[in-house]
Amino acid sequence: MAKNPCVLVLNGPNLNMLGAREPEIYGTETLAEIETRCRKRAAALGLDIDFRQSNGEAELVGWIQQAGKTASGIVLNAGALTHTSIAILDALQAAGMPIVEVHLSNIFRREEFRHKSYVSQAASGLVCGFGGLGYGLAIEAIAGLIDEQGSGH
Amino acid sequence: MAKNPCVLVLNGPNLNMLGAREPEIYGTETLAEIETRCRKRAAALGLDIDFRQSNGEAELVGWIQQAGKTASGIVLNAGALTHTSIAILDALQAAGMPIVEVHLSNIFRREEFRHKSYVSQAASGLVCGFGGLGYGLAIEAIAGLIDEQGSGH
Amino acid sequence: MAKNPCVLVLNGPNLNMLGAREPEIYGTETLAEIETRCRKRAAALGLDIDFRQSNGEAELVGWIQQAGKTASGIVLNAGALTHTSIAILDALQAAGMPIVEVHLSNIFRREEFRHKSYVSQAASGLVCGFGGLGYGLAIEAIAGLIDEQGSGH
Amino acid sequence: MAKNPCVLVLNGPNLNMLGAREPEIYGTETLAEIETRCRKRAAALGLDIDFRQSNGEAELVGWIQQAGKTASGIVLNAGALTHTSIAILDALQAAGMPIVEVHLSNIFRREEFRHKSYVSQAASGLVCGFGGLGYGLAIEAIAGLIDEQGSGH
Amino acid sequence: MAKNPCVLVLNGPNLNMLGAREPEIYGTETLAEIETRCRKRAAALGLDIDFRQSNGEAELVGWIQQAGKTASGIVLNAGALTHTSIAILDALQAAGMPIVEVHLSNIFRREEFRHKSYVSQAASGLVCGFGGLGYGLAIEAIAGLIDEQGSGH
Amino acid sequence: MAKNPCVLVLNGPNLNMLGAREPEIYGTETLAEIETRCRKRAAALGLDIDFRQSNGEAELVGWIQQAGKTASGIVLNAGALTHTSIAILDALQAAGMPIVEVHLSNIFRREEFRHKSYVSQAASGLVCGFGGLGYGLAIEAIAGLIDEQGSGH
Amino acid sequence: MAKNPCVLVLNGPNLNMLGAREPEIYGTETLAEIETRCRKRAAALGLDIDFRQSNGEAELVGWIQQAGKTASGIVLNAGALTHTSIAILDALQAAGMPIVEVHLSNIFRREEFRHKSYVSQAASGLVCGFGGLGYGLAIEAIAGLIDEQGSGH
Amino acid sequence: MAKNPCVLVLNGPNLNMLGAREPEIYGTETLAEIETRCRKRAAALGLDIDFRQSNGEAELVGWIQQAGKTASGIVLNAGALTHTSIAILDALQAAGMPIVEVHLSNIFRREEFRHKSYVSQAASGLVCGFGGLGYGLAIEAIAGLIDEQGSGH
Amino acid sequence: MAKNPCVLVLNGPNLNMLGAREPEIYGTETLAEIETRCRKRAAALGLDIDFRQSNGEAELVGWIQQAGKTASGIVLNAGALTHTSIAILDALQAAGMPIVEVHLSNIFRREEFRHKSYVSQAASGLVCGFGGLGYGLAIEAIAGLIDEQGSGH
Amino acid sequence: MAKNPCVLVLNGPNLNMLGAREPEIYGTETLAEIETRCRKRAAALGLDIDFRQSNGEAELVGWIQQAGKTASGIVLNAGALTHTSIAILDALQAAGMPIVEVHLSNIFRREEFRHKSYVSQAASGLVCGFGGLGYGLAIEAIAGLIDEQGSGH
Amino acid sequence: MAKNPCVLVLNGPNLNMLGAREPEIYGTETLAEIETRCRKRAAALGLDIDFRQSNGEAELVGWIQQAGKTASGIVLNAGALTHTSIAILDALQAAGMPIVEVHLSNIFRREEFRHKSYVSQAASGLVCGFGGLGYGLAIEAIAGLIDEQGSGH
Amino acid sequence: MAKNPCVLVLNGPNLNMLGAREPEIYGTETLAEIETRCRKRAAALGLDIDFRQSNGEAELVGWIQQAGKTASGIVLNAGALTHTSIAILDALQAAGMPIVEVHLSNIFRREEFRHKSYVSQAASGLVCGFGGLGYGLAIEAIAGLIDEQGSGH
Repeated sequence: MAKNPCVLVLNGPNLNMLGAREPEIYGTETLAEIETRCRKRAAALGLDIDFRQSNGEAELVGWIQQAGKTASGIVLNAGALTHTSIAILDALQAAGMPIVEVHLSNIFRREEFRHKSYVSQAASGLVCGFGGLGYGLAIEAIAGLIDEQGSGH
Repeated sequence: MAKNPCVLVLNGPNLNMLGAREPEIYGTETLAEIETRCRKRAAALGLDIDFRQSNGEAELVGWIQQAGKTASGIVLNAGALTHTSIAILDALQAAGMPIVEVHLSNIFRREEFRHKSYVSQAASGLVCGFGGLGYGLAIEAIAGLIDEQGSGH
Repeated sequence: MAKNPCVLVLNGPNLNMLGAREPEIYGTETLAEIETRCRKRAAALGLDIDFRQSNGEAELVGWIQQAGKTASGIVLNAGALTHTSIAILDALQAAGMPIVEVHLSNIFRREEFRHKSYVSQAASGLVCGFGGLGYGLAIEAIAGLIDEQGSGH
Repeated sequence: MAKNPCVLVLNGPNLNMLGAREPEIYGTETLAEIETRCRKRAAALGLDIDFRQSNGEAELVGWIQQAGKTASGIVLNAGALTHTSIAILDALQAAGMPIVEVHLSNIFRREEFRHKSYVSQAASGLVCGFGGLGYGLAIEAIAGLIDEQGSGH
Repeated sequence: MAKNPCVLVLNGPNLNMLGAREPEIYGTETLAEIETRCRKRAAALGLDIDFRQSNGEAELVGWIQQAGKTASGIVLNAGALTHTSIAILDALQAAGMPIVEVHLSNIFRREEFRHKSYVSQAASGLVCGFGGLGYGLAIEAIAGLIDEQGSGH
Repeated sequence: MAKNPCVLVLNGPNLNMLGAREPEIYGTETLAEIETRCRKRAAALGLDIDFRQSNGEAELVGWIQQAGKTASGIVLNAGALTHTSIAILDALQAAGMPIVEVHLSNIFRREEFRHKSYVSQAASGLVCGFGGLGYGLAIEAIAGLIDEQGSGH
Repeated sequence: MAKNPCVLVLNGPNLNMLGAREPEIYGTETLAEIETRCRKRAAALGLDIDFRQSNGEAELVGWIQQAGKTASGIVLNAGALTHTSIAILDALQAAGMPIVEVHLSNIFRREEFRHKSYVSQAASGLVCGFGGLGYGLAIEAIAGLIDEQGSGH
Repeated sequence: MAKNPCVLVLNGPNLNMLGAREPEIYGTETLAEIETRCRKRAAALGLDIDFRQSNGEAELVGWIQQAGKTASGIVLNAGALTHTSIAILDALQAAGMPIVEVHLSNIFRREEFRHKSYVSQAASGLVCGFGGLGYGLAIEAIAGLIDEQGSGH
Repeated sequence: MAKNPCVLVLNGPNLNMLGAREPEIYGTETLAEIETRCRKRAAALGLDIDFRQSNGEAELVGWIQQAGKTASGIVLNAGALTHTSIAILDALQAAGMPIVEVHLSNIFRREEFRHKSYVSQAASGLVCGFGGLGYGLAIEAIAGLIDEQGSGH
Repeated sequence: MAKNPCVLVLNGPNLNMLGAREPEIYGTETLAEIETRCRKRAAALGLDIDFRQSNGEAELVGWIQQAGKTASGIVLNAGALTHTSIAILDALQAAGMPIVEVHLSNIFRREEFRHKSYVSQAASGLVCGFGGLGYGLAIEAIAGLIDEQGSGH
Repeated sequence: MAKNPCVLVLNGPNLNMLGAREPEIYGTETLAEIETRCRKRAAALGLDIDFRQSNGEAELVGWIQQAGKTASGIVLNAGALTHTSIAILDALQAAGMPIVEVHLSNIFRREEFRHKSYVSQAASGLVCGFGGLGYGLAIEAIAGLIDEQGSGH
Repeated sequence: MAKNPCVLVLNGPNLNMLGAREPEIYGTETLAEIETRCRKRAAALGLDIDFRQSNGEAELVGWIQQAGKTASGIVLNAGALTHTSIAILDALQAAGMPIVEVHLSNIFRREEFRHKSYVSQAASGLVCGFGGLGYGLAIEAIAGLIDEQGSGH
């Protein structure tokens, strides 16, 4: 029986604190609840999910480097590293698979330094400002992009 | 019988040319096909759609001003006016309803002057880079936002 | 009997929504009430008023182009177009008559992009931040300027 | 008999030279004539005037600090200090009463360094470009603002 | 008998005022005289001319969108919209035919904000600073470009 | 017996090298000596100290995330990460306790890129330029801030 | 008996208004209370205090010029002049004694124009954001710096 | 018999390499062929041509300085010196005759550093982006300008 | 007997400290010695000298305002106010007599913020970098300029 | 027998992916092959090599901090961290030994954000754009620098 | 017998002064010694050297234009022209052969205006900061690049 | 008999045109007259003059390089090259003798691009805005500087 394509869903620094951290900006949903939301949406679309979080740039870079072995696409909320990490951008540009960028808040209505995204230079598209719901939309978007490429693992 | 809430889907300059215009950037889907896609998604979510296109800033401003009478939310692809029209921003800020910004292409991978969006200052969130599929995601996002407000017309 | 000089009072995009739109910024006075205020002040100063509003840059440009035939001065609140329209600036510079710029809010205490005014390049002076009262002051200012030129139509 | 509310009209550096100094920019009216103009307008509106000029930032700051004891509003033409004095801005922000900014010339049509006003950060509104007439308009504007606050001394 | 290729000559806001408007910048030639000049030059080169003017961005965008049906090239003086309209740029980039930009004045010797041209991003070349004569040169330039493409309608 | 409130004193990259590293900028005091200094000052003020150093952004972020469980305030010298780490800023903003920023050198007299501090966006205040003595001052400052909040663990 | 070294504590414009002026930014402590706080702290450290306030740049410059005759160090809160006065910077650079900069509020969390300090170019270090407490810390810091120089008057 | 007015056609660095150098940018026409094109066009307009090329700023400056003795107008393609040579600008401003700027490529669609032209500050107008054809247009433009001045040598 | 024309030589903040203040930048000459130098040079050129120093912007402005009554030219070293005082610039522009700017140090080799001079906008010319000798050169320069105007008092 | 001086060759994020990652930019040589190349070149020059790679800023900082114990020089390709890591710069500035910066690609022909190098502030020199060959050149350069210092471990 | 490929080694302004000129920046090696160094290295790699120096932009441009006839690669130290000469960039881009940029000093640790290199836009790679040794490395680099192209003259 | 020290007076591009060229900016004095003025002033001060002009950067660089053999100081008006030539700056910095910068006009009241001077980075001081008289002042200034160094040739 053919295995489902797998989507690597990566979360950057401080996303492990969701629900507790500044709910007026990030909402009350926890990261575990977002993972559940992703898994449901993915299952309905015939996709598997590999869901991870790290506060470390190096760990995120390592996971992206290894994505080629197991995943068909990446959904990435790099958190604060979105705006500062060229290392993540380099890893993404080498990954050779569809990438979708997601943010819980609308980063363009926040501080000026959150308006620039290195991730955007490597991502097909972006979903932001819809809280946890945005992860679901990102899963559907990556499904469409994987489908276009007609491939999986 | 209760009427469905209505979503105003607005399209700015040159989006009437979709399919013909630079398909390597904007894809081959026509605006009519995108409208159909929106209507299907909306129907499944219990929403009506009022789908329009204009090349004129003034006409778009007028439609947004009138939205309060008939619509519960706005999905807006303002095209080139995204980057230049403060008049549309002013109209959106006065509209008093959820707003979702959508773009076919990932505007952050294009020319510098397409990176700034006045629409973002008034929108809850943004979906870009997924072609026509992005309109479907935007419909789902606006449905969620209307739901949160617990209201319709 | 000599006709009174006429002042063209022009209002740009979204000013038709006054009263309803964000009263904490723009106040509760409607545009019709402002027109009444202008007419009273003008009458006391021996001036006629031609009071108009448009959401469209082209329409405003057209009205300014035609001003030379009927008006002796222009009072202009170009709304959002203040900050973006070089076409209106060009029309004003060709108008050959006194021009007074007016804004309801103090644009210099708002977003950075509202601090630059193309209209200011062509106007004798500026009144801003006094709500509807400012239109009255602008009428008095234009009366003074028309008087200095010693002419009418 | 109730005393009239008092308006403090402050003038910054070089305004004592009016009439003599560059009449093509500032007009031929002297500061004494402007004071007379202010007093007449104020009297008609039921206001007293305390009219002063200083070349010194410290003296202007001191007058603004003391305004709370005697005045209900401030009309300020800070001259060149408009563009450089944060100390005046700080004093104005602490003054707790309506403030109107006035300039003889249209500062936005002059050198780039005259386009930024620290005073604007604390003033309700601005009148500029109408020469001495602008002081009269500013008096009327401050009258309206004092009236709104429904108070005097 | 083979029809001549047609050149769409478009003129933006305020160009209808030529002759009257600031002759020290724009000269005394009227737009009608420029049209005549264009027609003569075009006839000598075996081209037809479709000559239009509009103050409206939307109307200009619409004409460019329709150019593909009737024209083999576009000569465009977008006036003030040159510097502000991304919508016109988008329409030009989709037009699929040679484009020549023309200005009456040398925009690089005027205000800073007239130095940037969105039209230049889509035009093969530029003629500016020669008044009405420049339209004639632009017609010859577009003739050369149409010739290179070896096509017409 | 009531436990003393605890202050988390965090040190970023290269602060483990103190004493050896560029003494003309950072002085000859080692980090261990600074820790001793902090403990003495804290003891006198009735505070406990949890003193740590890391070269890693992720480890520092993790410590700040866990601060809520054990500490009543944070004194932070983020070293070079002061100027580059939005992830630390995000963690600090979510920490919900008083924060004091400290630097050994006066960062405003050094290279331009050391003048911007992300930490400052989340800290109540800043002490810099006094070498190890500054840590003592920061302990006293945090003691005052904890006191104002009237709380501990 | 040896005289105590003296510290000149200088306060710039508007600091005479402390307590009354915007307490949400500057706290409720008056300048007299801060002086008392300074005197106590100084006494405990074997220092005398010469505590002054002026709204005038020239007066502050004069006091700094004379410091060499009586003082061993300067603690300076230049208020708004911090950001604008090169004259104070020049006087400080010529003073030849330790200088500590202090601010009541955290100037780096306020308006952009308060982020630049000319005083910092001449001061050993900076304490800001701790209200009146910061003056006490500054006294301790200057004591340490005077001590390092091993000198007094 | 009256002599024809003479036009000095100057070409800057690397234009001697035309035809060989990057034909996708500059076309395949050689400088000799362009000279021929200029001579033909000039002859038809009753003008003589003095056609030169130099890689040296000093030599070009010298030729422009001497132009007053023999020429009635200058057509200048300064090549790379367009963007860097203030010395050429100074010479042109002193030349006292009509000047037309020409470039083979559309410099506004190339690298950012080619968008600024010092030559434009002294030239009546500009023709760019039409390859060798542009020289012909420039000759016609200079003929018109010389004609307006009604003079020759 | 005809009186000599008088030159007002003004010195800004901190110039009273010359000789003591940072001799490696400003030299060891005192202001009194510079005054003597000026008087000798002036006498030789048939000029009187009115030599003054102030730390205060207002006092300097006042002296410049009064210059018209007694002086035929101004030599000004505004010290730090050179870079910050628009009030001095305004006074100079109204003075209606030749002005020469002088600095002891070469301000263009010092900090960036010393490169901009408001005084330069009003001065005929500038002498800087020659220490006290520069004052002598400035006296000779002003003598030449007064001579050109052929007038005195 | 005297031990050879040792060179620490450090490689930053994503350099472990060499050969696989975007060969059109980085070439097909793997990091292992580059290590071999370094070892050969070093051996010929009488140097030992300690060759490492890490995706982590903290790990690289730690290795540089420890370099003093074992190495006589550092060759560093910090990858993406070149442009963002002040922590690495600080560690390098404290290292007290020669440093050579190396990059596979010519970073100055790539995106703007790759043009700035913090590493350059601490390195003696730079080799970039020659792929793996550049490492060999860097080894020779560091050998020369170590030689100049006449020291090893 | 096959001739060796030839490398053109070009040196820009002031490099003729090497040894005498500021040895703390440029070292004590003369240009003749560097030539010798280049010849030795080239001989070992089977390359001929054509070594030249000029203070003149035009002469350097001319030599680069002629390189195609005799050379297989260019090593260029353009000195100060590195930062200002677009003419040299244009010549290099047309040269059609490998180019290596070399500088004696590390230009990125010097004044800001030396950080930008036009030469880098055309060069494969860059060696800087190693004094005369860098020329040797550049020769080896160009040898590798010529080898890759498999060609000579 | 001891030879007088010699001053090299260098003049850059277009200064050979003095008198003819834009007299409203540069005056009517010719360069020959300025040379005479310099010779007289120098003779009175016991100096010889070597007076030269060139339009060429390379020639000026060469003269500065050779100055060490014959001259004790340089007076330089580099004309337009003042603002663009780093090569001249490099030559001046290597010259090892006093340098005085002179300009006929006040470059700080002209176009923005004339405000930056590379020459200032190497010159002791600057005289500008006094026409030919400024050369005399510059001669006196260089005499003073040579005197301080107590040397000649």
